[in-house]
Formats: sequence, structure tokens, C-alpha cells
Amino acid sequence: MRKLDSLGILESLDLVLDKVEAISWKQRVFLDGAVGKILAEDVVAKRDLPLFDNSAMDGFAFKQGSPKKLKIKKTIFAGDVVEPCLEEGECYKIMTGAFVPSDADTVIPFEKCKFDEEFVEIDEVKEGANLRKRGEEVKEGQVLIKKGTKITFAEVAMLAAQGITNVEVYRDLRICFVVSGSELKESFEEAGEFEAYNANYALKALLRERGFNVDYYGILPDNFEKTKGFFEKYLNYDVIITTGGISQGEADFVIDALNELNFEKYIHGILVKPGRATLAGKLGDTLILGMPGNPLSAIVQMLSFGVPILEKLRGNRNFYHKFVEIENRKSFKVNPGKDHTILGEIKKDGFYVIDNYKYGSGMITPLLKANGIAIVEKGKKVVEENEKIKAFFI
Amino acid sequence: MRKLDSLGILESLDLVLDKVEAISWKQRVFLDGAVGKILAEDVVAKRDLPLFDNSAMDGFAFKQGSPKKLKIKKTIFAGDVVEPCLEEGECYKIMTGAFVPSDADTVIPFEKCKFDEEFVEIDEVKEGANLRKRGEEVKEGQVLIKKGTKITFAEVAMLAAQGITNVEVYRDLRICFVVSGSELKESFEEAGEFEAYNANYALKALLRERGFNVDYYGILPDNFEKTKGFFEKYLNYDVIITTGGISQGEADFVIDALNELNFEKYIHGILVKPGRATLAGKLGDTLILGMPGNPLSAIVQMLSFGVPILEKLRGNRNFYHKFVEIENRKSFKVNPGKDHTILGEIKKDGFYVIDNYKYGSGMITPLLKANGIAIVEKGKKVVEENEKIKAFFI
Repeated sequence: MRKLDSLGILESLDLVLDKVEAISWKQRVFLDGAVGKILAEDVVAKRDLPLFDNSAMDGFAFKQGSPKKLKIKKTIFAGDVVEPCLEEGECYKIMTGAFVPSDADTVIPFEKCKFDEEFVEIDEVKEGANLRKRGEEVKEGQVLIKKGTKITFAEVAMLAAQGITNVEVYRDLRICFVVSGSELKESFEEAGEFEAYNANYALKALLRERGFNVDYYGILPDNFEKTKGFFEKYLNYDVIITTGGISQGEADFVIDALNELNFEKYIHGILVKPGRATLAGKLGDTLILGMPGNPLSAIVQMLSFGVPILEKLRGNRNFYHKFVEIENRKSFKVNPGKDHTILGEIKKDGFYVIDNYKYGSGMITPLLKANGIAIVEKGKKVVEENEKIKAFFI
Repeated sequence: MRKLDSLGILESLDLVLDKVEAISWKQRVFLDGAVGKILAEDVVAKRDLPLFDNSAMDGFAFKQGSPKKLKIKKTIFAGDVVEPCLEEGECYKIMTGAFVPSDADTVIPFEKCKFDEEFVEIDEVKEGANLRKRGEEVKEGQVLIKKGTKITFAEVAMLAAQGITNVEVYRDLRICFVVSGSELKESFEEAGEFEAYNANYALKALLRERGFNVDYYGILPDNFEKTKGFFEKYLNYDVIITTGGISQGEADFVIDALNELNFEKYIHGILVKPGRATLAGKLGDTLILGMPGNPLSAIVQMLSFGVPILEKLRGNRNFYHKFVEIENRKSFKVNPGKDHTILGEIKKDGFYVIDNYKYGSGMITPLLKANGIAIVEKGKKVVEENEKIKAFFI
């Protein structure tokens, strides 16, 4: 019988992460197509921000030390270019974002003054209040966004504000996903009385939700030659993801085929429940990620183990789990001999395990109820109520 | 001067949510196109899950009360259909997912036995162990997924497992997004020395990340007639989102145009920082969401106020913020007279406010550093270290 490795889930993850580097292929994309991609260059500021001294409020701009009652000299709208022109006892009426000429140093908002068409009475206000100084946020030439950052709305805001319309990103990973198991039918096929539908197809949806493009190959039959042939033919992918076929059963041909093909194993077997039968390694230049055959195990393992690896490979410098440390709300039993990845609901006040952790790895309903996964490392028999645990959102 | 309303952020949100119903238009989509959409029907189970008694492990299936040493009668692979055929002292070798005939009631995994080609010695194991009974997870006819659920990988797993290839979903919202402000230049234009680039374009990216399609109109000049004309012409949208033009400045024509067009106001003004100048209401059948003009304010307000409203409108039953209650890690000052929506980094051990909450609403860098927003309601001067606060991920 094949012997499985016995590192825990996080050690296994670290081991594989150490071997994975960001792909080297880059491409240039326009801003609109950049959302969700990973920056492959540092972005450097092209201009100061703010670009000029401007008003943070709708109000009146004046110089500290002026009298309390001021004459309104003129109104400055956003976009207006105005030469300094105040005389003693005068101020500007000014709109948010508008240029503040150098003869004013403070802005007081409308709601803090009494005013009519001609005059305004101003209250006490700190020098420099409501005035945004040129370059106070960003100086030309400084690094704004680091290589390896995922481009979200925040990065788009900064790029747009800088007038930067295109950036260099890592190209999308080319991922092929294949399900192993002759007994499975696709949802669009007719399944007989003793035939199960292929729920592992959901991994495609999972990866797509996380911004990965996935080519779905379909179902690979339990046949050594066909499995070997598949790997030989599909090595032009960056990643091949499989489900099933890597455990200790007699129809587990994925591992047999890989072993005959000069597979460089990183991990085969993780001491975690669910997901004992998990595989990672390299075949030629292609990363192989073998997930368990049961849908719940495959999905939990992809989230706990697969996704951080794929994130690192695509160049994301924040590839690791974003753990939150929260209180467990309902005690549940675990096996001290292994790690556990546990589906739960993360609520405002803590972690609620799904079905007392008594669900089976062949089930699907626990996935419908969960919004998080807790990782409990080996050595424990019970996770107590109120105990702090680490979990991440899914 | 226009008077603004003075409800807090969550009261304002509740007020608008009460007025918004899910759109009534539905459409039928295939599984592959369903990811990210909202179910417009209850999904009912077409078949029991599991569909037949099957093995949860690779191992041996036998009847409790059999002798310790058993003869291996035959091997059952997943997908095989086998008539009961055990005689006294016999068992099946069986693979994960394979049908368990009615003359076996328990499965023992390989790793808990000694075995050769012909015989196996079994250990003590509970009756029914590692056997998944027909219908133990799902019974035909039961509601599997409720109307209003967002279809993620988990729902795809269940739909695929049921052989359900198409579902009824709400059609996508038709959203038009327009930026107001003559002074702004688009990032692809040439901005002069005193001209700012339009960073509010980032709202399109924000909404796209959350699965909304957005038609971007561009920049609307500060002109009453043009603004009024825009609204009259674009009322075939479900939602029009604006930035700027709704405050107390003299170039704020969005609110003026709406008021002349029989606008049904829900909210104009929220007592929150940032985001005082926020608008929600209805013009004909079109929902109007007016966000502040500053990019940081517009984005924070869209996340805190706009997104839950759009989620409810698109039919999502889980439209509200998913708050986590966490400890604040660095004390910071707030104004007791209003609510605050505060950018921070949610780390494993708590909430870290960005730049001591001293950033300005015209800045963009705080957005690059934050992964969450805390909501602090009015009445406080200081949010202390170790104090519990509520925050959501962005």
C-alpha cells in the first residue's frame, strides 16, 4: 500500500510555498482590464497629491490675522485658476477641491459662519484648517503601490488619480482542472440509480470566484494509460489540478501515472481531516495539485491548501491566509492525532462549528452553511467553548 | 443654504433598506453562468443524497457479528452495481464511494486492518462505521437552497450533485454611474497644472468586484440644464449612481436638478464622517444613490451605505454588513456629535486604525492600506485601545 506523508496542514503548505515562485511572464494592461490582476512592477508617483493647495470644504478662504468680518472678494470654483488678489479685510468664497491662492492660508466651512452676498463673519479656526497642501499625501517619484499587489478598487483610485492608464501585471495563470473517477456523471448527463453526479465541478466556480481562469477538462476515467496520456499531453499548462485518484485505493491511477512520469513530489498526504489524500509536486514545468475525491474534502482542501499556493504562483505578495483570531462558541471534539480544517459560521461574536463537526466528507450541505474555516492543529481532543481559535473567511 | 438630514449611518441605511425591494425580473441560466448571481427560486432536491448506501473509505465491507478473520469475496469499485452475495465469514473489498450491498453494514478502512490477497483480519469498529446511508444528507423534495441566496461554489457543488443544470436567478441590475465635476479630467486625458484627475472612476471597479455590472457615463459638467437632461434621459436604468454635486456648494447641480424632477427623497445628508453629503431616493422607477465628491468619502460611503442597498435590490437575502466584533488596538479620537466610518487593517488580533484616523477625505493612500471599515456611532470622544468595536471586511 502507498505510504502517505504525515506533515500537518500548515507545515505542508509552508513546504510547498517555499518551492513556488511567481511566474515570470508579464503583460501590460489598461486600467479597466487591470482589476483583479497582480502588479508586476512598482508603481511610482507621476505627480504630487494633492497637485496644488486646495480647499477641503465649501466655505471661505482667508489669511490668519484678518479681521472677524470679511468682504467676499470673489468666488473660486473647482477648476478655476486664480491669481492672489486679496486686500486687507477680504476673503474668497471657495468650493471643495478648488485652488487656494497663496494669499489665503485657512478655510472655514459655510456652516461655521454667518454670511450674506457681500460679507462673512468668521469664527475662530486653526491656521491651515481645511486646506490641503500640495504634496501632503504623495510626492512625485515615491513608490505608490508595490509589485505583487492585487489591483482592487483602491489601487484603481490611486492609478486614476495619478493619470496612470496602464500597468504591468503578471499574466493569468493557465490552469487545467480534471476530475478523476469513472463512476461520476456530469450534471448534464443522465445518472443511473447507482451513479453519483460530479460535484467537484464546483472547484471551477471556486477558482473563478477568486479570479483564476480555469479550463475544465472533464472526467478522466480510472485507467492508467489514459491518465498517463492526459498528463503527457497537457503539460503546457502552468498548473494541473486534479480531484481523486491519489489515495490508497486500487483505482487510484493519478498517482500511479505521475510516478511513472518523473514526477517531483513535494507532498503526498497531509495529516489533516478532511484531506488526507492531497498531492503537490512538479511534472516538467507544470505544478500539479491533487485534491481529494470527496467534494467537501476537495473544496476545503483547495481553500486551505491550494489557493495560497496559486496566489503565490500568480505573483500575489499577500498570498497567505488572512487569519482572524476569534472565540469558539460551541465545543466540539477532534482527533488529537491530526490537524483539522473545520467548516463554521463566523458571526459577530465568534465561530460556530457546522453540525458539531459531525458532518461527513462526502456531504455538501455543510458547505452551504459555512462562511469560514478554522484550523485546529493536532494535540487536542476537544475545542472548548470560549477558546480562541484561528479561522479565515471563505 | 440646503439643509441636510441628520440621521446616523446605520439608521439612514435601515431607512433606505426598508424602501427597497428585490427587482421582479428573473431569468433562467445554466450552471456555468450562475456563479455570482442571486437565486430567484427555492431549489428543491431531485434525488436523495447519498443516492445509495456507499462506502466513505477504501477498505472492507462486512456484517457486524462476523468472525475476526474474513475471506475477501470480491472487490467493489465506485460505479459497480453488485447483488448481495456474502456467505458466512466473507467480506467485500471496497473503494470510496462504491455501492455497499445490503448484506454488509459496516466498513473498516485499510489502515486499520491486516490483509493479503485473500484474507483480512478486522479490528473492533462501530456498526455502521464509514457507511453513508441513502438519504442521510438530503431527502428528495426538501428545499436545498433558498430563494435570495447568492450562488457561490458551495451552491454549484449542490446543484451539480443533484444533476440540476439550470436555475432561475434575478437578472443583473442595470446600473449607470456618473461623476459630477467640471474640474475633473479622466486618467486618459491631459490634466493641467491645476486640474485633478477623476479617481471616483474606482467606484466602477469596486462594484465590479462585488459582481455588479456598471455602465460608466463619464463626467457630467457643473451645469444645471445638462444635469437635468442627463437624469431625464437615463431613467431606463434601475440605479443611477452619482458622485459629487449634492452638498452645499454653489456648483452642486445634481441635487438642484433632482429637486426639479419630482425626486422622492429618502435621505439627503447623513451624520457621519466621512460622507455627510450622501443622497438616496427615487426618480420614477430609478433608484438614485448620490455619493460624496471626494474619492475616499465616495468609496467608504459606497461600501458602508451603497453596497447593502444594491445587494437588497438585486435580490440577495444576505444583503447586510457581515460585522465582526473585534478589539481596537490603537486608540484614536472621534467627534461625539456624529457617527464615523473608519478605515483600518483587520489583523489576527484586532483592528488597527489607519494613520490614527487623521487622514483627510480627499486622500487615497488610506484606501491602499485598509482591509476593513469600523463603524463607531456618535456619543464617543475616544475609541480606546482594547475596546470592542464592530467592523466589516472590504
